[in-house]
Amino acid sequence: MTRPRILSGMRPTGALHLGNYMGALENWVRLQDEYECYYCIVDWHSLTTDYANPGQVKDNVLEVATDWLAAGLDPERSALFIQSLVPEHAELHLLLSMITPLPWLERVPTYKEQQQQISEKDLGTYGFLGYPLLQSADIIIYKADAVPVGEDQAPHIELTREIVRRFNNFYGPVFPEPKTLHTVSKRIPGTDGRKMSKSYGNAIDMKDTPDAIRQKLRPMLTDPARQRRTDPGNPDICPVFDLHKAFSPKPTQDWAAAGCRSAGIGCIDCKNKLAEHMLAVLAPMQARRRDFEARPKDVWEILIEGSKRARATAQATMDEVRAAMKIRY
Amino acid sequence: MTRPRILSGMRPTGALHLGNYMGALENWVRLQDEYECYYCIVDWHSLTTDYANPGQVKDNVLEVATDWLAAGLDPERSALFIQSLVPEHAELHLLLSMITPLPWLERVPTYKEQQQQISEKDLGTYGFLGYPLLQSADIIIYKADAVPVGEDQAPHIELTREIVRRFNNFYGPVFPEPKTLHTVSKRIPGTDGRKMSKSYGNAIDMKDTPDAIRQKLRPMLTDPARQRRTDPGNPDICPVFDLHKAFSPKPTQDWAAAGCRSAGIGCIDCKNKLAEHMLAVLAPMQARRRDFEARPKDVWEILIEGSKRARATAQATMDEVRAAMKIRY
Repeated sequence: MTRPRILSGMRPTGALHLGNYMGALENWVRLQDEYECYYCIVDWHSLTTDYANPGQVKDNVLEVATDWLAAGLDPERSALFIQSLVPEHAELHLLLSMITPLPWLERVPTYKEQQQQISEKDLGTYGFLGYPLLQSADIIIYKADAVPVGEDQAPHIELTREIVRRFNNFYGPVFPEPKTLHTVSKRIPGTDGRKMSKSYGNAIDMKDTPDAIRQKLRPMLTDPARQRRTDPGNPDICPVFDLHKAFSPKPTQDWAAAGCRSAGIGCIDCKNKLAEHMLAVLAPMQARRRDFEARPKDVWEILIEGSKRARATAQATMDEVRAAMKIRY
Repeated sequence: MTRPRILSGMRPTGALHLGNYMGALENWVRLQDEYECYYCIVDWHSLTTDYANPGQVKDNVLEVATDWLAAGLDPERSALFIQSLVPEHAELHLLLSMITPLPWLERVPTYKEQQQQISEKDLGTYGFLGYPLLQSADIIIYKADAVPVGEDQAPHIELTREIVRRFNNFYGPVFPEPKTLHTVSKRIPGTDGRKMSKSYGNAIDMKDTPDAIRQKLRPMLTDPARQRRTDPGNPDICPVFDLHKAFSPKPTQDWAAAGCRSAGIGCIDCKNKLAEHMLAVLAPMQARRRDFEARPKDVWEILIEGSKRARATAQATMDEVRAAMKIRY
């Protein structure tokens, strides 16, 4: 009995933070029990926005892979690989481009949004317009049955499904329509209360030392109305409480909420308890990380082997694609 | 001493006509003496417009290759190959897409022109917008020094040069800027006086039998003012005279021009003489064609071998490209 297959990818942004972990990685680890998993470091995607400065990509790939292994992704069960080591993604992307109406790409919500948000880079490129199509190729080249994604990525899966229908309609039933596997997304704020993000400088990294984590939590924003220790606070609007919900057990969450509302505890007490639970969650991962950090060659070897395994699947699909499109010689 | 390198391509449209021969192929044959030549059947390009009906591509590839060999392209000297058998073209196209501003593609003159002219197909696709960029990848992946093109293709080479400058500026000097090798373009009208084109149904194919050629020439349009045998005509506006200029020796051209102006010869005489010279030019090619037609497997073998040879060059370039873009692992 074959297990259903999933594909998901992450850009090589460097060391992963708690938002990456709680938003995706923790879930990916769990999915390994039920699915045949393809997890891809999408280095080409990082070029869609960082084409002018790709110098960090290689280091970042290693950082991401090390965090993946630390978190518990298992190269024995899952294919952990690098997108550009499976160049068939580019071939499928090109072939899909022939049947993809421009408006389908122009109307992807992230297209205009990101162009507006990231004003310091020129994103008016052919590659940036096409990146959701590259994502579609990433997914369907493995005939993935499902894709675990956060809410903001849902339109990309919808686009992929449209492209699959169009392809199958022209050339015959080659690809399954991938389903969206919605993940329970916990809100992971950064130390300034905004969404945790490397680019905001508000992130706590998975690999941060206990001291570094305590130092980042100490000045972290809480309920702004709670100015003095004796003021009662509102945990529902406190970013620290959001982190409790992600890292602390229920009794601790209840203790923090009640103590906040009654001013029975101070923010420092609350943050110390959070640090304790956060460090307990991270400890086994950080131990694994130290192990892999000491042998980067093995991490590269895992990626190379995973890429070979992924490539074999991708090549089999491309053989079918070429036959269906009548360009197999 | 290495010879400078050129790259040129043709879409697999099927059997080639005299316009293809005089407009490109005759020149390609001659260039083999001076250049290291890469001649590519661009099957992916044919999908930019014919994505909905690719059924004929494979037969058409064989037809084009057979005409190439018939015309005198020499697989011992030149790499005769199929674009899709060198999938690195797709990878380079993707990488170039990251640095290519959309307006550079939108302003390519053929983009709007062809969309207007070819109204029966939907050319509003991502792939159609990107096809000049795919041409750029086709050229520079071989580090071609020059590209033999007709006038209408000159903007594509200019785009390629711009992209090369942008790439080299970002990542270092990997690619030379290809020069345009302008070919002396003879006007080759079809039997209705318009430009010879498969889609106009006015073409004389390189492989047409002598009888078929005479039958196509007989009703061919001449100077419309010359209605009767006794009317003098004007060779300067006669499409048959254009063909004389392409196929007949100078003395015959002079004979035809003088006889036309003086009404000393009739159009039938003129066409008979043209047929004679046209058939003489085609005879050795048609003999070679019969040879290759009898052994299509050998023609495929030539393309497969040529593609391997081209691919080795393309792979070496891509290795440099990946290193320059810092994504070689």
